[in-house]
Formats: sequence, C-alpha cells, structure tokens
Amino acid sequence: MSKVKPLILITNDDGVSAPGLRTLIAVMAEIGEIIVVAPDKPQSGMGHAITTNSTLYLNKISKDNDVITEYSCSGTPVDCVKLAVNEILKRKPDLCVSGINHGSNSSINVIYSGTMSAAVEAGIEGIPAIGFSLLDFDWNADFETMKPFIRKITLEVLENKLPQGVVLNVNFPKLKKEEIKGIKICRQAKALWIEKFDKRQTPQGRDYYWLAGEFVNQDKGEDTDEWALENGYVSVVPVQFDLTAYHATSLLNTWKWNE
Amino acid sequence: MSKVKPLILITNDDGVSAPGLRTLIAVMAEIGEIIVVAPDKPQSGMGHAITTNSTLYLNKISKDNDVITEYSCSGTPVDCVKLAVNEILKRKPDLCVSGINHGSNSSINVIYSGTMSAAVEAGIEGIPAIGFSLLDFDWNADFETMKPFIRKITLEVLENKLPQGVVLNVNFPKLKKEEIKGIKICRQAKALWIEKFDKRQTPQGRDYYWLAGEFVNQDKGEDTDEWALENGYVSVVPVQFDLTAYHATSLLNTWKWNE
Repeated sequence: MSKVKPLILITNDDGVSAPGLRTLIAVMAEIGEIIVVAPDKPQSGMGHAITTNSTLYLNKISKDNDVITEYSCSGTPVDCVKLAVNEILKRKPDLCVSGINHGSNSSINVIYSGTMSAAVEAGIEGIPAIGFSLLDFDWNADFETMKPFIRKITLEVLENKLPQGVVLNVNFPKLKKEEIKGIKICRQAKALWIEKFDKRQTPQGRDYYWLAGEFVNQDKGEDTDEWALENGYVSVVPVQFDLTAYHATSLLNTWKWNE
Repeated sequence: MSKVKPLILITNDDGVSAPGLRTLIAVMAEIGEIIVVAPDKPQSGMGHAITTNSTLYLNKISKDNDVITEYSCSGTPVDCVKLAVNEILKRKPDLCVSGINHGSNSSINVIYSGTMSAAVEAGIEGIPAIGFSLLDFDWNADFETMKPFIRKITLEVLENKLPQGVVLNVNFPKLKKEEIKGIKICRQAKALWIEKFDKRQTPQGRDYYWLAGEFVNQDKGEDTDEWALENGYVSVVPVQFDLTAYHATSLLNTWKWNE
C-alpha cells in the first residue's frame, strides 16, 4: 500500500440512501480518500445495463466542505462507474467497491446483480474492484458484523493486487460475528432461478405479471460459494469478464461449419 | 435432429418490429415450429437486467390462425425469455435464438448486450441458445447475406448439441456474400470502451450527459472474434455463465485472509 491514501470509488445498486452503502462508506473512510457515485433510486437486478437511449443526470449531494464527496446518478450502477471515472474523478481510482448489497449475489445471482456489474465494469476499466453482499434483503439488516471482514478483504486487495481481468464477489452469511468461521475462496455454484410468475389483473382487467421465483442450487460441491455460506463462511469468488468457454472450443472445431 | 419439428423461441433486444428479428424469423420458419417473444421497445444495452421492482405485460400480436405466434413484452430481453419459458410455452424449447442484433456484440460487447443476455438466460435454463449480430447499426442494414450462414449454424447446433453451460455468440462482418471467407470459432477479444460523455444542458440550464465512447481493441491475437471479423470471417464465440476465474483461485489462496 502506498503512503498516499488510496482513492476509493464507492457505488451500489440499492441506491444512494441504502444502509448497506452507508456501512461501506464508514469502513472505506478509515482506509482511503473516498468518493461516492450511486444510483438515485434502487437499481437491483439491472445486471450490466447501460443507458444508451436516454440522458443521464448527476447530482452532487455533499456540500463543498464535506469530507466525503457524494453524487447521485439517474442511471444504472454501470453508468455510475462510467460517469465517475470519466466525468468526476481526476485520476483512475485505486479501488472500486460496490455494495453492501441488501441480499445475496452468490452463484448465478452474480449475472443479474447491479452491484456486481458495477464491480465488473470497474474491472473492465482496469480498476481493482470488489462487490460486497449480505444474505439479508431487509432494509434494516445488520451490517455491523461485516465491518472487520470488509476492512480485511479491502486491505488484502490493496496490498496484494488482483490479477488483471479479475474482480471479487464477496458474500456474507446472515450470522452473528462469533458464528462466522472465516473467509473462503470459492467457485460460483451451478444454480438457477425457477420462475413462478405471479399473474394478476389491473383494476381495468388487463393481465400483468410479477417476477417471482425459487433459487435452486443443483451443485453439491463443497468448494462453492453456496456451500461456504451455508456452512458459516464469508465466500469470495474471483469473477472474470472474459466469457469465452475455452473448454468448448476444441469440440466446436470438430463441427462442420464450412462444408 | 428429431423428426418432430424443433420448437424454437426467438427474441431480440431491438424490439419486436426490428428488421433483424424479421430476418431471423424468416430463417427459423424453415427449420422449426417457432414462437416469438420480443420486447415492445428497443432494449439495447440492457445486459442481463430483469424487472423485479415493476410489473410486466405480454401482448399477443399474432392472430389465432397465424402460422407464427408472436408476443411483445414490456420487459427486458431476459424477461422475455423467462416469460416465454414459464408462461407461454407448454414445453421447454429445443433452441432459443436471439437477434439479429443491429450492431456488433463481439468482444466485451457481449456483457452489455441484451441480445446476448437473452441467449445466456436461455442457457442458464438449460436451453441451447445462439445470439446473432451484424456489424451494422443501420435499421435498414442488409441482413440477406446472413441467411445461409444462420441456417447452417442453427442446423449444426440442433444436430450436434452444445455442451452444458455454453451458448454461442455469432457476429457477422458487414460484407457481401462473396467477400465472407467462412465461419470461425474464436475467443472474446480483450477490448473495452473508452467513454467520452457528451455533456449538454437542458433548456432550463441543467447539465446532462449522453453516453458516447470509442471501442478500443487491445488484443493483437489472431484467434479473437475481432480479428476474425476484420479478416472477413463470421465469428463464433462459445460463451459461458460460470464467471469463476479459476486461474486466480490458487493465487488468492496464498493471501492471508484469516490472520
């Protein structure tokens, strides 16, 4: 870690007023110089969405002499990172942290998550990045337990440097401090959501749907994030954005594409 | 390929009226029984977004005796796939095709793309899936050239079966038929967008931003999708949704997480 305080960009997908974000700010304020650029409204489930067909607004919500500079943004979590890096920050940040998400981003949830997509976007732009999530959807979830773990994980990343093209997906079980067994490096469990749409009618009689579903873990492995979380560990999955399925290329090359 | 016509789900991110979708429908109608569930408006750049905080509408836009059944959906491309599979289709489709996207989804674009995210969602749900894109943003782009290639790729997938957890990202160069050299299996090029936000003012004097940017390919490899497209090939990248960076786990296990 350099002697100059690291510059840390903080964002999330639950919006700038979310308690999870406030906890993350509290931890990061003890580590570095921080700047917050977060969505002005909840943006859960936005994945890696960007705003291409509409305009974007930034509002500075901190005062000029506040220690922490904060902006709200009308766009998605990924928009927040892009605007922060290109329009607000004078230099590339040393770290981007996203969260703390109210709810799990383990397993396949990584792909739907605005929190993780913000971290991935930072990674694409060459910024070390970590997404933090707690397995508790409650707005008033207890984030205090997580603080020393978040501090530890952040300091490890700042000191050791992440490999190029890799960001971290960190999930916390909903447990008391003394119940947490430690931090565990994991792989993403093979799981999916089985949807059960809730079909309703408007007062005018038109059908509409609410997305609902059940998370189904099909993976019995003991090296997965789901296993770690169920067994009292904080899960850390290294996440990449080169989506190439390299293991499939030799098989595909045996197919008769050009005959 | 079974003797029963395969059931093919078609979607896109440019919306149900896009010419690219119409071309894809024309090709698929010769191969299988098809059903279209596509967004009712453009949803480019929506990535893997899902609608969790709002309602979803489906409108049947084909008539009861039409050969092809078509629905428009108020949600994202991923919502379209989820609604099709869970609320419309009586059995799991044999294939999901998405596109033809007006514009490239090669390289890192795969992660922002609603077209590809629809294909990935199908893959997560265990449905073989292909996303098709043309390197031409024009609404009136020439999709005719692509038809025999799309037919060939689709038949190969139906006959040979894709490995579990793998979908295909197919991109076409903007070339005449005689200029296309063939189909090439590739990896995702390491590239990114360098943003240049266009800052403007509303008539009331408030600043706003339009996302704009320049695509920068940092990858000199001759096995990438970018290389293939620049050299006259149709690129096919196998894409996975297990985002674990397995190559980073042994390094991360040497860090002092629990000290």
